[in-house]
Amino acid sequence: MPGGSQKHPIVAVDAMGGDFGPPVVVPGAVAALREAKDFSLALYGEADGIHAELAALDAADLDLTVHPCQQAIDMAESPAAAIRAKPDSSIVRGLTDHKAGKVDAFFSAGSTGAVVAASLIVVGRLPSVDRPAIASVIPTTAGSLLLLDVGANVQCTPQLLLTFAQMGDVYAREMLGHDRPRIALLNIGEEESKGNELAIAAHRLLRASRLNFVGNVEARRLLQGVADVVVTDGFTGNMVLKLIEGFAPFLQGLAERGASAEERAVLLPALRILQRRLDYAEYGGALLLGIDGVSVIGHGASSSRAVRSAVLVAAGLARRDIPAKLQARLHADG
Amino acid sequence: MPGGSQKHPIVAVDAMGGDFGPPVVVPGAVAALREAKDFSLALYGEADGIHAELAALDAADLDLTVHPCQQAIDMAESPAAAIRAKPDSSIVRGLTDHKAGKVDAFFSAGSTGAVVAASLIVVGRLPSVDRPAIASVIPTTAGSLLLLDVGANVQCTPQLLLTFAQMGDVYAREMLGHDRPRIALLNIGEEESKGNELAIAAHRLLRASRLNFVGNVEARRLLQGVADVVVTDGFTGNMVLKLIEGFAPFLQGLAERGASAEERAVLLPALRILQRRLDYAEYGGALLLGIDGVSVIGHGASSSRAVRSAVLVAAGLARRDIPAKLQARLHADG
Repeated sequence: MPGGSQKHPIVAVDAMGGDFGPPVVVPGAVAALREAKDFSLALYGEADGIHAELAALDAADLDLTVHPCQQAIDMAESPAAAIRAKPDSSIVRGLTDHKAGKVDAFFSAGSTGAVVAASLIVVGRLPSVDRPAIASVIPTTAGSLLLLDVGANVQCTPQLLLTFAQMGDVYAREMLGHDRPRIALLNIGEEESKGNELAIAAHRLLRASRLNFVGNVEARRLLQGVADVVVTDGFTGNMVLKLIEGFAPFLQGLAERGASAEERAVLLPALRILQRRLDYAEYGGALLLGIDGVSVIGHGASSSRAVRSAVLVAAGLARRDIPAKLQARLHADG
Repeated sequence: MPGGSQKHPIVAVDAMGGDFGPPVVVPGAVAALREAKDFSLALYGEADGIHAELAALDAADLDLTVHPCQQAIDMAESPAAAIRAKPDSSIVRGLTDHKAGKVDAFFSAGSTGAVVAASLIVVGRLPSVDRPAIASVIPTTAGSLLLLDVGANVQCTPQLLLTFAQMGDVYAREMLGHDRPRIALLNIGEEESKGNELAIAAHRLLRASRLNFVGNVEARRLLQGVADVVVTDGFTGNMVLKLIEGFAPFLQGLAERGASAEERAVLLPALRILQRRLDYAEYGGALLLGIDGVSVIGHGASSSRAVRSAVLVAAGLARRDIPAKLQARLHADG
């Protein structure tokens, strides 16, 4: 990231992202700006749509700029092809301005594949990172944990999992306030001999590192608050993230199809509580850790509330200059 | 399995299995016998403990035999070493009698590793199966599905996943009453290009097979009743199974630690409903598919009710001669 530490960062927001575009993204971003006031907002996308939302929100006096873009990348497009074909898309324009140092962070609730690919192509990796990871905040009974990778790398090496752990460690110290984050490896048993070849080799590397490695965590205990950062390959991490996302719909399905009227009366209110807690995972969005900049990715179905939280996270990452801290740490450990 | 189709099978039960041994296992097995009456029971284990339970249950007149064993394999023992060191353990004795055709099925709620290893060493594989799989019944909003492998093979080939699908297909037809079971591949995307190398190659093999392959299923939709049989490698399957098992404790943890008194009043009754439904997974135990016999494995924490269900499943598998049907199908498809 050019520019180094920022007292007052500019956060670029892809107004065209998510399933609903400006009507959901702009109110969320404006809410973040009104709440924090310690960053500037740069909205990228179709100008009329953005201005209509800003007018409705009475947001003319806020610290924000609008960057009209003639193109938008759809959720269904092939990421690499869309990036080449749409240089004036909100995703490519926002990330290009980030690379040029005109903005200090980027947020999109658009296609994860397109944001990851464009972040890599336009912004680039940190020198010490072979492959960036997508990190996601997951709710636990005690609070939350950072899980990575949740989908950027379906095939990983043990060394890559160690890099993920080091990046997660920096994130948990700087952003979550943990003095000495507990780092765990997601595995199918607690013993170090358990798991596939990757897990066994990664366990050995993590054990030998200077991290506060607390060992393997089984999926059964993942949500019990036994670790602050949990590393795994992107195939397993994506599977786990999506299964957790499926819990609330499963309860809902039980209530609707499998339950008596009496059971339904109990299940539906419980479902609402669960959804509020699982929403937590969405608050911070997913973070692309390991690129030379700040790129935060929201769920396609993000609400304005989720956009608001993710924009605040993006501003916080830029303000604390997390990419530079990741690079310094990885360089020192490397 | 020696002997072929049985009208009145004998089911061997490891009375020493599970966290509690005879006081939980014997009542469960006797309850199954009293309910079904179409099989005989053979109880293996410490004779005094078994007879004490039988006396308390007033079970002297039932169609059962007791096979005293001087040894028992603990949950914590190394499976291979324990099998060698304890020839007179209830697990080795029961499976040896199964191999000799003296009993037609085996059930244990003991160490999964020991039961899998002893089943392989003592009973052996079906000729057409390279590696057996552990299959588990998982609840869905619409009923249940069979997931395999859930832990016997942490590393799999595409061909092995096809074998698992073929075995699951036979099981779903014979035991779950599905005419044309919907077979799916657990993956991180619906498109055939998604996933790691194993998933992409397995998708291609399944697509080309004569199975009713309905494509990839994402973890988010796994519990929505979109497939009857779902195949995956044992690392991913074990992860998914354990995460599902962790769902009720997660809700409980939320209720106890993260919730207001008002929320707790809603969450706890919902938790009880959920636990009843998730218990379903435990009803049938886990099945070791691909050995030349019937081996059913219960959770260490099995209740008498879970033992009862698993013993009924073991009797059903033997009565329908599932191993012979698996071999015939795999031989025909091979």
